[in-house]
Amino acid sequence: MKYRVGVIGGGQLARMMTVPAINLGIDLKVLAETANSSANLATTVVGDYTDLKTVMDFAKHVDVITFDHEHVPLHILEAVEAAGISVQPPSKALAHAQNKLVMRKALEAIGAPNPRWLAVSSASELHAFIAEFGPEVVVKTPIGGYDGKGVRVVSSSSQVSDWFEPAALSSLGGQLLAEEKVSFTRELAQLSARNPSGEFRAWPVVETRQKNGVCSEVLAPAPNLSNELAEKAKQIAELISSSLGVTGNLAVEMFETTDGKLLVNELAMRPHNSGHFSIEASTTSQFEQHLRAVLDLPLGETTVAEPSVMVNLLGVSDEVDFVENYPEVMKQFASAKLHSYGKSPRIGRKLGHITVVGGTQESALDTALKARALILGVR
Amino acid sequence: MKYRVGVIGGGQLARMMTVPAINLGIDLKVLAETANSSANLATTVVGDYTDLKTVMDFAKHVDVITFDHEHVPLHILEAVEAAGISVQPPSKALAHAQNKLVMRKALEAIGAPNPRWLAVSSASELHAFIAEFGPEVVVKTPIGGYDGKGVRVVSSSSQVSDWFEPAALSSLGGQLLAEEKVSFTRELAQLSARNPSGEFRAWPVVETRQKNGVCSEVLAPAPNLSNELAEKAKQIAELISSSLGVTGNLAVEMFETTDGKLLVNELAMRPHNSGHFSIEASTTSQFEQHLRAVLDLPLGETTVAEPSVMVNLLGVSDEVDFVENYPEVMKQFASAKLHSYGKSPRIGRKLGHITVVGGTQESALDTALKARALILGVR
Repeated sequence: MKYRVGVIGGGQLARMMTVPAINLGIDLKVLAETANSSANLATTVVGDYTDLKTVMDFAKHVDVITFDHEHVPLHILEAVEAAGISVQPPSKALAHAQNKLVMRKALEAIGAPNPRWLAVSSASELHAFIAEFGPEVVVKTPIGGYDGKGVRVVSSSSQVSDWFEPAALSSLGGQLLAEEKVSFTRELAQLSARNPSGEFRAWPVVETRQKNGVCSEVLAPAPNLSNELAEKAKQIAELISSSLGVTGNLAVEMFETTDGKLLVNELAMRPHNSGHFSIEASTTSQFEQHLRAVLDLPLGETTVAEPSVMVNLLGVSDEVDFVENYPEVMKQFASAKLHSYGKSPRIGRKLGHITVVGGTQESALDTALKARALILGVR
Repeated sequence: MKYRVGVIGGGQLARMMTVPAINLGIDLKVLAETANSSANLATTVVGDYTDLKTVMDFAKHVDVITFDHEHVPLHILEAVEAAGISVQPPSKALAHAQNKLVMRKALEAIGAPNPRWLAVSSASELHAFIAEFGPEVVVKTPIGGYDGKGVRVVSSSSQVSDWFEPAALSSLGGQLLAEEKVSFTRELAQLSARNPSGEFRAWPVVETRQKNGVCSEVLAPAPNLSNELAEKAKQIAELISSSLGVTGNLAVEMFETTDGKLLVNELAMRPHNSGHFSIEASTTSQFEQHLRAVLDLPLGETTVAEPSVMVNLLGVSDEVDFVENYPEVMKQFASAKLHSYGKSPRIGRKLGHITVVGGTQESALDTALKARALILGVR
């Protein structure tokens, strides 16, 4: 008897799921886009996740389907579910991570804290929203955005006129999402997991720092956060996951506003960049927890004994692989945990990360930033 | 550019090396005996490690050859080295882990603490040794023994008469190893690593508890050990690894004698059962350290912040896989780290292990033993 998990998508999240799969003896299969994917050690099928037959053939050989990304069309997942194969998170929950308008409506319905928002289908509707909540507002494409893509801060509807072109608007579902530009002191992320039986566990809420819309540093736990807000963040995650029927990991990205409140920014229903620290810093890593959760196994402890800092390694060259700098970095930073995703280098691409655990959060951040500068060869 | 490591042997040690290989982006290839090996996720070649051509063809595609076990014939490794391919540990060092007589002689030459011993080639020589150091002594086959095999406690040479048969004795190299039966309070193991550049790092010395000659529990660090003996254990490991030119991991199994001394029992030059605790309990796991060491990369920190206990999972049935008990064990022991080696169940076979980190060592041991009883379904 074997637990068999099928992951759609062969990126670094699938790659990092192979580690707990090896530890626990779980049979992990990956449906990857290319033979040379980041998760190629476990890849068993290379194919197109938007093709029903490809996904269905893949799903037949596993106990549960889960995800490296949220781009699998819902109608395909519904067909897999209709065939009696477990999909975790189920298509009904995943819909909220695929479409930001669906998410905003659902969060409003369950009483989770949204910024002020409006679905706009024309420049004049956006114009009115700007007039009320401007001078600047945020406009998002409901689908297809990630890492800052599909998000614009605008003061005039003309700045998203391309998205209002009939063909573009139609491909986005007919509406854009307009949101107030929240005045915040920092961004937080609450990572948690829930299994189909309803067990829920959360890691300590973390602080995330972005550069150009991409996660750059994560401080775990979020330093100097009031117990009240830390508790509130957990409650929001539990409310969302139980109300929307989320299974597996849920990352709730939030703003800590200047007036001391939390507002939900984005949702992800899979392992998340903000949780990589857990590989070394928590009793249960987010990747192990996700596998346990989607298999409906009991969840592991999410204790974090020491502060930790994770920094992303984004490509600074199209040619040089940072692993060439391992000797110098390992020599100077014997405590740094280095992670490479095995991808070809490309400027701006997420190629790996570094985690430093222990000491003070200031010292961990200092070490992590110095190690990053050295490994990437930047000042 | 990629670091490429070739591991000979596809057991659980090779399997557990795949984890840091994934984390660090190291290309790990395994030469396994069977397609369905424990390390089959990384297996690239299935073949016979006693066949020169098989090993040579495998070695040509990696930067360094290392080991899951010490059974590769020396003449094959010498041929690989002669072809200019790095073998770590080198054949000259590995010879001491392959042959217990070679080891005893070398330890004596460098001044490492041996029990009293003698190479015996006849029943009468053994008889004389028993007369001097008996009533009971330990007789070992110099080669081919592991996990209690090839070791007998005897009071008469007739108890190893089968080993003295001319054909048997000749296959063992013509001599047996006789050792005094050491009076010890417990067994310890000192795990360390050294790279070809000479950097050396050791984990805290651990206590190992055996059942029927097989490792059953490991307490890390060894409880109630004097600083003096802990320091002595490290010095012995460093002396052995530097004097014998050991690279990669070195496990020195030792007796803590009733008169408060340390005596070397066995050596292993690879990741070792006594070091599995390091996966969760140390900054650098023994599997990551071994890869770093054999690639001549700088070594990682071996800090152990909290006490931990590892218990082996030996098969109690030829049919039932313990993973079937995951739900109950995970529910009751959310902090236990469960490891399955993905092997078919067989009575007495090493199928996995459990590590518990944190709290007191007593509480960790208690949790680990209860979790083991539950997962194996034994009282």
